[in-house]
Amino acid sequence: MGDLAMCLDEEASRHFLQEIVNILLAYMCKLFKRSTKVLDFHHPHQLKEGLEGFTLELSDQPENLEQLLVDCRDTLKYGVKTGHPRFFNQLSSGLDIIGLAGEWLTSTANTNMFTYEISPVFILMEEVVLRKMMDMLGWSNEEGDGIFCPGGTVSNLYSVLLARYHFFPEVKSRGMSAIPRLAMFTSSHSHYSIQKSAAVLGIGTENVLLVKCDERGKMIPGELESSIASAKDRGLYPFYVSATAGTTVYGAFDPLNDIADICERHGLWIASSVTWNPHKMMGVPLQCATLLVRKKVSLNFECNQLCAEYLFQPDKHYDTSYDTGDKTIQCGRHVDVFKLWLMWKAKGMEGFESQINKCLENAEYLFDKLKNRTDFLLVFESKPEHSNVCFWYLPHSLRNLPPGCERDKKLHAVAPKIKAKMMEEGLTMIGYQPLGNKVNFFRCVFSNSATQREDVDFLLDEIVRLGHDL
Amino acid sequence: MGDLAMCLDEEASRHFLQEIVNILLAYMCKLFKRSTKVLDFHHPHQLKEGLEGFTLELSDQPENLEQLLVDCRDTLKYGVKTGHPRFFNQLSSGLDIIGLAGEWLTSTANTNMFTYEISPVFILMEEVVLRKMMDMLGWSNEEGDGIFCPGGTVSNLYSVLLARYHFFPEVKSRGMSAIPRLAMFTSSHSHYSIQKSAAVLGIGTENVLLVKCDERGKMIPGELESSIASAKDRGLYPFYVSATAGTTVYGAFDPLNDIADICERHGLWIASSVTWNPHKMMGVPLQCATLLVRKKVSLNFECNQLCAEYLFQPDKHYDTSYDTGDKTIQCGRHVDVFKLWLMWKAKGMEGFESQINKCLENAEYLFDKLKNRTDFLLVFESKPEHSNVCFWYLPHSLRNLPPGCERDKKLHAVAPKIKAKMMEEGLTMIGYQPLGNKVNFFRCVFSNSATQREDVDFLLDEIVRLGHDL
Repeated sequence: MGDLAMCLDEEASRHFLQEIVNILLAYMCKLFKRSTKVLDFHHPHQLKEGLEGFTLELSDQPENLEQLLVDCRDTLKYGVKTGHPRFFNQLSSGLDIIGLAGEWLTSTANTNMFTYEISPVFILMEEVVLRKMMDMLGWSNEEGDGIFCPGGTVSNLYSVLLARYHFFPEVKSRGMSAIPRLAMFTSSHSHYSIQKSAAVLGIGTENVLLVKCDERGKMIPGELESSIASAKDRGLYPFYVSATAGTTVYGAFDPLNDIADICERHGLWIASSVTWNPHKMMGVPLQCATLLVRKKVSLNFECNQLCAEYLFQPDKHYDTSYDTGDKTIQCGRHVDVFKLWLMWKAKGMEGFESQINKCLENAEYLFDKLKNRTDFLLVFESKPEHSNVCFWYLPHSLRNLPPGCERDKKLHAVAPKIKAKMMEEGLTMIGYQPLGNKVNFFRCVFSNSATQREDVDFLLDEIVRLGHDL
Repeated sequence: MGDLAMCLDEEASRHFLQEIVNILLAYMCKLFKRSTKVLDFHHPHQLKEGLEGFTLELSDQPENLEQLLVDCRDTLKYGVKTGHPRFFNQLSSGLDIIGLAGEWLTSTANTNMFTYEISPVFILMEEVVLRKMMDMLGWSNEEGDGIFCPGGTVSNLYSVLLARYHFFPEVKSRGMSAIPRLAMFTSSHSHYSIQKSAAVLGIGTENVLLVKCDERGKMIPGELESSIASAKDRGLYPFYVSATAGTTVYGAFDPLNDIADICERHGLWIASSVTWNPHKMMGVPLQCATLLVRKKVSLNFECNQLCAEYLFQPDKHYDTSYDTGDKTIQCGRHVDVFKLWLMWKAKGMEGFESQINKCLENAEYLFDKLKNRTDFLLVFESKPEHSNVCFWYLPHSLRNLPPGCERDKKLHAVAPKIKAKMMEEGLTMIGYQPLGNKVNFFRCVFSNSATQREDVDFLLDEIVRLGHDL
């Protein structure tokens, strides 16, 4: 059978792929069952040493197809079931069957988004889907543009890149030394991608000014205003403000209108672009991230285009404005649109709405439960605005300690200890982190509409079981 | 059936996915047959208007599953069959069945490369595969590091980013205004990604100095030397040289050793990192691109890390050096390693070797054929070093014109005209472009090992058939 892997004939290919599909269907079947573990944890050195014949090492000799099928089963076995209804660890969870079908088709089509020439259908789908998203942002009557990016961090990087080009188009050819020292603003609760962008683009992380937030994690407009003023005093050129609709940890919404007013007053870039990741609350398989730009189309093109003649020949016989590859900072670009397009066809807006509402209901359900418990403590008392719920668990030994340094020190160690046990037992997963002056707390996020109230109950019971005696 | 799309039960999910798989298998079955067209061309406006009921527009109402299956069939029907043995348009072609199985599994696992916590197996596979690749580069006894990137252009961007950080670590926090004006060097035949990187990173495209090449498209070392000297004279700080092993159009190999000697003499960054895209000659499905760095591991980490606490908690219970997400300029990162790992298991080095040799043999076969034809003209006479073969076709009307301006002007229009007809008939696809003072010529590239000599013969016959009377 060994040779087949090198020159599979049609029948053998069919057979092999069907075998793989059977493995994948069996995996999904387990995923739907709550009795299945979320993960079967092993430390890196254990996995590297090889478990029950599963070896990661590559040899120069080919393996036979039977062994490959075993490898595939093992890969899934030792992985983490992010589609499990009790996986609360990340905001990209669940496994949407329609989206998955879309990914399988995408990989079979195996093409590239750089030109209409080789991706006519996907290029046009991108236009349709981005237009639909812009309509939802209320940009129906405006020119606009957008692009699918390899993750939201890259979308954010694009937004900074476009803003920089908008104010100083000469930067593209002459570089940063030809323009003033720039300053960017974002909230202290915002995603770290804004600082990454500053590091990559040569702006420098110290020129990203982190604006103070209120207790709920929302940017304080007055603080933004004074931050802009002090940047100007220091000789910096403020050009960009990032506001967040649903922060990473708290799920907080910055006061967008107030911030936009300040930006307008100071002539800064905001509400000019939006990063929107359908691989989060919309449940689209990874990756599916977009940047939408509220400007005339050419901006995006001019900022990045270099007109490579081997791809973007001007003398093609079709409308080459559809060769969108030159808009991007990539050359080849993975097709990320089809799964979203297919899901949209399957669900309509209604379907996405009810999925997302289900997640928000779960968050509220968890919040309400925690409010009435004495062994749990909410990080903030106000109702969740998004699917994030943040809380501490108080083990029995801490319950009678007064709030303060001593309790905090002990409390800080609780979440990591519970998480470690949780991963070793593998029945559920939730993330934790410190934030500002708050010691380690759990953050529960909901984005899998298969998650039910019983799963939320299970999570709390499990935390109590693992943490009660700490 | 409409409701099913929103809340598919297990049986319906299984059934739907199996139906999709049947469509994909039927598609592949057609792909293997040479009688199938490579594409069924339509102009953007035709596809947008909707063809035989295939509408790209999204409505707010859900579609039923039957209609989704029709949509999937139509998406494939109007797409370009990049896996067809007569698709010569791009260096990423073919459809490797093992790699495809790897992609299907990857999308079913639906996880993210940022932490070991949620991708234990894939994170370790990445280490194993990158180590294997470094061994092949001859770095067996050296420390090294690497990363899978969303395309080779991003890999190249990483290399510039790392080089800049290596010379000026303060750039990360203080930005480009704190460091000298930089200069980068690459050949005039190199890929446009080097200039894109300079634009993105704030170095500026005018500070990318394009070094002259010889007739064969190889960088001339003496020209590099004088280019470095003149940059210094102009007050620039040379720090980075990109050399190419297999240029985009000619498939030329720069004289790596000579260039490395010059870099060593001037203390510049070369041979310190390598961009290697397995989605090209190795036939791995899109996307699969890597950057390999010949430096101690921490370099890559330090340059990009920001230690976001919600992902990279230092108090985790496992070895967090495997949380490689903080190395990257992305946050979420698609799993691109598994398909390559599985192919490597299936083929071994032998398998990849024989696949690639097959492609190089096809290039030589084409070259030998063209050499003996009077209706074709090779762009250069020397044997191909890689899978690229570049040539003009001389229609009957041009065959008696002497070389020179007048013939060139007419010749420039030949390739686009043939390509337009070729796409409308859809039986094969090849790319063309001008380069330097050379008017439009065809570039044939081979990366699909299913391509046979009869396909090469077919390509030439087709060019003659479509172009003879121009």
